[in-house]
Amino acid sequence: MKVLTKELWFNTPTRRAFVNITPQVEELVEQSGVQEGLCLVNAMHITASVFINDAESGLHRDMDKWLEKLAPHDPVSQYEHNNGEDNADAHLKRSVMGREVVVAITAGKLHFGPWEQIFYGEFDGRRRKRVLVKIIGE
Amino acid sequence: MKVLTKELWFNTPTRRAFVNITPQVEELVEQSGVQEGLCLVNAMHITASVFINDAESGLHRDMDKWLEKLAPHDPVSQYEHNNGEDNADAHLKRSVMGREVVVAITAGKLHFGPWEQIFYGEFDGRRRKRVLVKIIGE
Amino acid sequence: MKVLTKELWFNTPTRRAFVNITPQVEELVEQSGVQEGLCLVNAMHITASVFINDAESGLHRDMDKWLEKLAPHDPVSQYEHNNGEDNADAHLKRSVMGREVVVAITAGKLHFGPWEQIFYGEFDGRRRKRVLVKIIGE
Repeated sequence: MKVLTKELWFNTPTRRAFVNITPQVEELVEQSGVQEGLCLVNAMHITASVFINDAESGLHRDMDKWLEKLAPHDPVSQYEHNNGEDNADAHLKRSVMGREVVVAITAGKLHFGPWEQIFYGEFDGRRRKRVLVKIIGE
Repeated sequence: MKVLTKELWFNTPTRRAFVNITPQVEELVEQSGVQEGLCLVNAMHITASVFINDAESGLHRDMDKWLEKLAPHDPVSQYEHNNGEDNADAHLKRSVMGREVVVAITAGKLHFGPWEQIFYGEFDGRRRKRVLVKIIGE
Repeated sequence: MKVLTKELWFNTPTRRAFVNITPQVEELVEQSGVQEGLCLVNAMHITASVFINDAESGLHRDMDKWLEKLAPHDPVSQYEHNNGEDNADAHLKRSVMGREVVVAITAGKLHFGPWEQIFYGEFDGRRRKRVLVKIIGE
């Protein structure tokens, strides 16, 4: 079995952001030498997400607006968690978008459909946070 | 390590549909010869979902109605993504339902609880789209 | 390849509950002897969830209230599934929170960020239900 483990670091300048991390993950798959296997990519923080969707900026603005409607940031006092914190909404937004993706590796490449791209979804940024990439296979 | 990779094709006659794909996945697990391992099943399109829930038509109608309330299709102009497209809601619905499932394989079978069934969730159908099944193990 | 398969049983006294199962999963990882691999933890019932978030009781009350707003239990008659049942909302709540998590194992331990904890999310409790842990690796 071949294994590759790598933590990627992010520090988004805004509270919320979507960062396309597909090129970094593709490079790690190549480094791993795995031809057939699985690639786990997960947020290591509970106010962030890793998800797969379209690399289209209009859609990202739609998602941001939609998540804000489902789990509003303000008023921060509506959440019990916001007792010295102001990020309860970030925990909820991440619950909608998911913590992780598992992507198949076939013939040495991420086995993707036509528009699949991997995103880091930040909901409480402006500080250093991590994503884990774990690749196993042969 | 044993590996099986297979793409399943769908073309639902309606925009939205839930298709029970459990028998097809079970057959692939058998074909793979894997006794102990993991089975990844994921939508290859970003307006569709693979999820596990109940094979009960009343629940499916409830889900459809509920997703339409959380992320309405109309008016299509409410979404920036719908600039020549009309499927922004499908991207959001799929975000709620998830892209993929990972199912354990134990003693050569999908290791399921009593009512678990795998569904393809289509939110922008009426065209050919794919699901990936990747099985790894021994 | 090393494999460990284990079903954990729960019977929560309340309809809804969040149970921190991290210590049990950590013990199974140790038992497995796997140094590098993947650990799948999934609800075996379709009205329950396994998810990763913060072990903070205020946040758990926020989540419970938020899920009740997104997918209310009452009136039970609003759901077609509630025909002899009253748990349609539990199927929807679990769809938001997800069925499963896949956690990397690195150097014999769950490879976690600073606050990640694994929870069993029960949305239709007061009866015996199961969670599956499947560990594979070397």
